[in-house]
Parts: sequence; structure tokens; C-alpha cells
Amino acid sequence: MKINHQRLMDLLDELNQITSEGEGITRLAYTEQEQAALDWFIEKCEQHSIRTHRDAIGNVFGTIGPEAEKGVLIGSHLDTVKNGGKYDGALGVVAGLEILITLLENGAQLEKPVTVVSFRGEEANILGGTFGSRAFCGTIEFDEDFIKRMESTPFSLQQVKETVGAERYSNYLELHIEQGKKLENNGADIGVVHAIAGIKRLDVTVHGEAAHSGTMGMEERNDALISTAKILLEFERLVKMYGEPNVGTVGELYVHPNLPNVVPGRVDFTLEVRGTDLETMREIAERFSDYASTYHQVAIKPNIEKHPSDLSEKIVATVEQVCKEAGMGYRVMMSGANHDANSLAAVMDSGIIFIPCVNGVSHNPNECVEAADIEKGANVLFRSALSLLKASQ
Amino acid sequence: MKINHQRLMDLLDELNQITSEGEGITRLAYTEQEQAALDWFIEKCEQHSIRTHRDAIGNVFGTIGPEAEKGVLIGSHLDTVKNGGKYDGALGVVAGLEILITLLENGAQLEKPVTVVSFRGEEANILGGTFGSRAFCGTIEFDEDFIKRMESTPFSLQQVKETVGAERYSNYLELHIEQGKKLENNGADIGVVHAIAGIKRLDVTVHGEAAHSGTMGMEERNDALISTAKILLEFERLVKMYGEPNVGTVGELYVHPNLPNVVPGRVDFTLEVRGTDLETMREIAERFSDYASTYHQVAIKPNIEKHPSDLSEKIVATVEQVCKEAGMGYRVMMSGANHDANSLAAVMDSGIIFIPCVNGVSHNPNECVEAADIEKGANVLFRSALSLLKASQ
Repeated sequence: MKINHQRLMDLLDELNQITSEGEGITRLAYTEQEQAALDWFIEKCEQHSIRTHRDAIGNVFGTIGPEAEKGVLIGSHLDTVKNGGKYDGALGVVAGLEILITLLENGAQLEKPVTVVSFRGEEANILGGTFGSRAFCGTIEFDEDFIKRMESTPFSLQQVKETVGAERYSNYLELHIEQGKKLENNGADIGVVHAIAGIKRLDVTVHGEAAHSGTMGMEERNDALISTAKILLEFERLVKMYGEPNVGTVGELYVHPNLPNVVPGRVDFTLEVRGTDLETMREIAERFSDYASTYHQVAIKPNIEKHPSDLSEKIVATVEQVCKEAGMGYRVMMSGANHDANSLAAVMDSGIIFIPCVNGVSHNPNECVEAADIEKGANVLFRSALSLLKASQ
Repeated sequence: MKINHQRLMDLLDELNQITSEGEGITRLAYTEQEQAALDWFIEKCEQHSIRTHRDAIGNVFGTIGPEAEKGVLIGSHLDTVKNGGKYDGALGVVAGLEILITLLENGAQLEKPVTVVSFRGEEANILGGTFGSRAFCGTIEFDEDFIKRMESTPFSLQQVKETVGAERYSNYLELHIEQGKKLENNGADIGVVHAIAGIKRLDVTVHGEAAHSGTMGMEERNDALISTAKILLEFERLVKMYGEPNVGTVGELYVHPNLPNVVPGRVDFTLEVRGTDLETMREIAERFSDYASTYHQVAIKPNIEKHPSDLSEKIVATVEQVCKEAGMGYRVMMSGANHDANSLAAVMDSGIIFIPCVNGVSHNPNECVEAADIEKGANVLFRSALSLLKASQ
């Protein structure tokens, strides 16, 4: 059995008609565009006699097979960032839908149910990214801050609590674009994700002395931006020295007072390290801090620290086996970005299958995936799901 | 004859009672605080029987001596930046006032007039810095943009045109704080300014590829901020290689999209070179552009180019002679900042006398000048003015 590649592409096209105006695809969490996409999913399921279900916050499910047993869950999300692409999230949901249709079409006799889910609000939003899947897994922390933020959303506390429903499933599988260049650069068809990167961020302030750009000589000035340039290059060197899978980024930076005729007196930036080993990430942050405070005037404060999480070894082995049998090149790798599978991993065996996206471009109207890669990815997802179904019999 | 140091300090203190609320001194151009300071100046002149005059835009003058001949003009400005210091501008006006009082007190017989002026709007303002002195010198360009901006000021076109009045004077002298550290670091008492720096600015855009900070590996990413760090350090190296008096600054910089989890895709900044030789400044800008476009993806556009201007060699020699006779250490130097003397230099022999300010701090509530330096500077100004009066007899 193989999925119907043309139908899958047509479903994707149809779904991506749903967007607000502007470049690329925009279906922000909790907006009418996200809602329309979820409604479209339900409608497609009903057209194919797939049983549907909406939970209390509107995560939508389509199920085939017997109800009695714990089933395999396949999914992703249909919300996007502003001016995003056609594949981030959508691919995983539509591939799951195509798998259910293929199974029905082939009259497959399932001993356990297979369910496709589209989680709400996976992209950064007021309730935090992966909100829908975290609610489904019951891992939301109802602190004061969260409850306050919920006030501006369509959800009640009661609804979020009623959403928990992960106990009906034994395995979770998600097909997603890589959003990086590792597969492309290494000529691999499939990424088998073994872990989701942790995140460690520091808030750094570099002090100099603001001064008139004309009157303060080069030797007399203390330019916070020049110090920052040195710090950035040392940070990059350090991260590269530690090597893969660690990555380090300064993405947000502010110069003060930020005028063309004033030598910068202060620079604020957020520094981020991601990796799969928290001790290593902490070591990089510490060595960075040592360097910066020894050679520059800095103030460094810890920002977030999010533990890396390992995905299911069983699923990694399953997907590897499928790739080998299909003669596909694969790479076992971390995911540097968060995905719904990260929420699911807390409560069940979970795995992610990556396919390459052109130039690693994502969260961008130019997000692009080769049609052949979609076909390969969807079939690896299909066979992996079947293999997990069998294994759990 | 020497100025009365205590009286000068008292006059400065009295003047600096005039400020809007907040840290330091704030007498923005064309506000009631600037007006109150100008009124205070007129009042002080009248108390000492100094003849006063306001021109059409409100530059104020105090004159002693005969009217018939071209006189020596001493001055500066009484407006300040927001939260500025006590000396930038105010020192030059008050020292001039103290000189007139000293001359009157000593019954000096003058064959030519000595005038103190306080120009309006010297600091950056909607009509451009040094507005008052440029109007006085008749060097304002009445282009469409200027006329539009004038609409939001208290001035009419007619008033600005009537302001021209420089033909009555033969020499202009301005005492000002250095706003840098060259005098302090070299143990010099006095800076004899021979030129005002020109300014050459470039608008630079550094292109990279925006990407997810977690998914894009260190070797695969094209980080516009890392490229910028390299560019900034190379620019600094280049400017230092050309050496004094050239200075180069990147003071204004923006990262895009400026999010902690996105590898910067673009950085925009304004680069500035100041110096006394336009050819050298252009060469630095050109070598910078060559380097940046060879090794990075950049787009570079010319911003302003303001010619350096030489001050009067005669006045430089006069002030040097005064310093030698007084046994003061001096340094012939450029002014990296613009001053009213720059406007005056277009129409008469003009000179600037610098005194050190502590740590070079200026445009700041912490602007600080040693009392002894004020006394030295005011006496050098006094003797230089007397020497110019005599020389032109």
C-alpha cells in the first residue's frame, strides 16, 4: 500500500486556499482562518466517512478502526505564523488524512484505531506555542500569569481542563519539514528525530561610554557596539568549537542611544544556546559568561532554560527500519525547533519524521518542498504507523 | 587685566537655574527655557550698562565700545540638548559677558567694539543645528524642505532673512568645552582649534538569511549579525590605521527581524567618518566599501557628506601666542563636533578655544569642568580678543 501522491498534493492545495490576505499563508492561532482550516479538516473526514471529534478547545480528530484499543495518533497543526509557508504544520495533518483515506480505500482491516489530529495554536501565541497539544496532554501549568493571558482568548479554564485526552493513544507520529539545511546539505531523504533541543537563554548588557562621535578619539572611546562585535564572534567560535548538535544565536539586539553621531554607550542582547545535552549547553553559557565578564564590562542575567527532551527510541528504530527497507537515505538528528511531538513525548511514545525543505527556508512565504520529498515522507510516515500498529498488537 | 573668576562662576550658576524639570539642564531650542536664558542675558547686560540688541529671530547681543568700526564678536549659545550639562554653550556666552564686565570695570578705552552674542538653536533642532548663527551669517538655504519645516517654528521667512548681520564684525571667538578626552589625556590646558571636522556617512545594509535559530546549523546559516560584527571590527581597524584626527563610528544599528529565536536576516546601520581632510575621509569610506562588498553581502548608499572647514590661521596663531605667554600647555586640534564658529567661518575670521571637560562627558547631566580650567579658558579668550582688537587697529 502507498499513499496517493496526487491526492495528497491536491488536499494541500485546497487547504492552502484558506489564508488571510498578504504574502504566503497566514492562519494565526485562534483566528477565523485557523478555525476555517479545522472546519475544512472535519469536512474532508466526513466526506471519506472518517469519524470526527472536536475536543473542548477545538483540537480536531479523525479516526478509523475499532474504538476499543489504544491507537496510533498521527498529526500536527494547521495554524501558521504571519506570512508563513504551505507546509509547516499543514503537511503533517494532510499526510495523516491521506493515510486514513488510503487505508479505507484499500479496505484495510485494522485491529487498533488510527487517528489524525490537528492541534490548535502550535506557533508562538499568547498561550505559548504548542498550546493545543499541551492542553491535550494535560501538561499546562495553570499559574496566575497563564490564567490572566487566557482572558483574551476564546477559552475558559474549564474547557482547557476538559481537553485532556491523551490516554486513548499509545504512539504519536508527526511528519514535518526540517526547517533547516542538514538533510539537503547531506543528501538525505529523511530525518529521524531522536530529541528536541533544549533552550538556554541569557540576557546580556554590554556597557561602554556614550560619547559624541566626532569629539571622542578612537583611542579614548569605550564603544559598547565594538565590544559587542568581539563578544558575538567569540560566542560563535565557542559554539562551533563544541560542535553539533549545539547551535548558538544572538537574534535580538538593541543599541543605545542608537544615534548616528553618538558612540554607543550600551548594547542589550539575548543570547541563545540550543542542544540535546543540558550540561553541555550550560557549559557553553558559562564559558561565554567567563569570557565576556573577563574582557568586557557586561551584566548577564539568566533568561529561560528549557530542558532538551528525548523522543521514543522504539519509534526512532521503527522509522530507521522503514527507511532502510525503502532504500532511503536518512539521518538521525535533533529537532532544533519545538513541535507538538514534544508535548506528546511527556505522555506517550512519540516520534518526528523530517523531510528536507528547499534551502531550509521556513516561516516565510518562500517555504518550498520538493513534491518527491513529500511523497517519500508521507510513505515513511504511513509505513512507520503501520509498523507501530502491528508491534503493539 | 584678568576676568573675575568668582563672578563668572556665579553668573554660570545663576543662568543654570533656568531649566525645565528633569536631570541636568534642559533648555531646548525655541522653548520658553531658551527664551528665559536669552532674557536673562539681556537683563545682565542692562545691569552692567552694556548695550543690547535682539535680531529678528532673537539672537541676542551685548556690545561695548564705539559703534563705528567692525568689532570682535565673542559668543556661543544658551540652548542645550535634553538633560544636558551646565557648560556646553553657556560657558562661551557667560565668559564673553564676564569679559565685557571686566573691561567696563577697568575703564578700558576701546577703539573698536567688543560684542558678546548668544545664538539661538545651536543644538540639533527642526531647522538644523547652528540655525541662529547660520541665519546671522546669511548661509541658510531656503529650499522647499526648509520652508516646510519652518512652519512649525515661531519664525517667518522674512524674519530669517532680516537676521543677517555678520558684516559688522571682523573676528569671531568661541570658548567651548572639548567634549572629548584629548586635552585631559594629554595634560593640555587649552585646545586651539584649527578645523572643524567634515562628516561622511554611509547607509549600510548587511544581508544574511533569516532562519529558525534552532533548526539552522552553525555551518549552514548565513547570520547577518555575525557578518556585521566582522564588518564593524574591520571598520574600526581601518579608521585606526588612518589614525588621528580621523574617527569612525557606527552609532545606529537595527537587526531584522530582531527576535531571540531567529537568525538575523538583515542588519541596517549608519556608518560615519569624521576628519579634517575630505579626500582621506572618502578613501576610508571607499576602502570600507571595498572590503564589505568583497567579503559580505552588503548594499551601501551614500548618506550626507559635509566638508571639513578650516578656521582662521591668524586666530590659531593669536591663541597659540597667548597660551605661550601665559605658560599654558596647549594642543592644536580639530573639533569633531560642529559649533557656531563653523557658521561664522564662512563670513569672517573665526576661532575656537577648547578647555578640557572631565572624562570627555558632555550632552549629559554629568558634564563637569574643573573650575581652574574655566578660569584659564576665559582668560585665554580675553587676551586673544584683546590681541585681535589690537591687531586690527
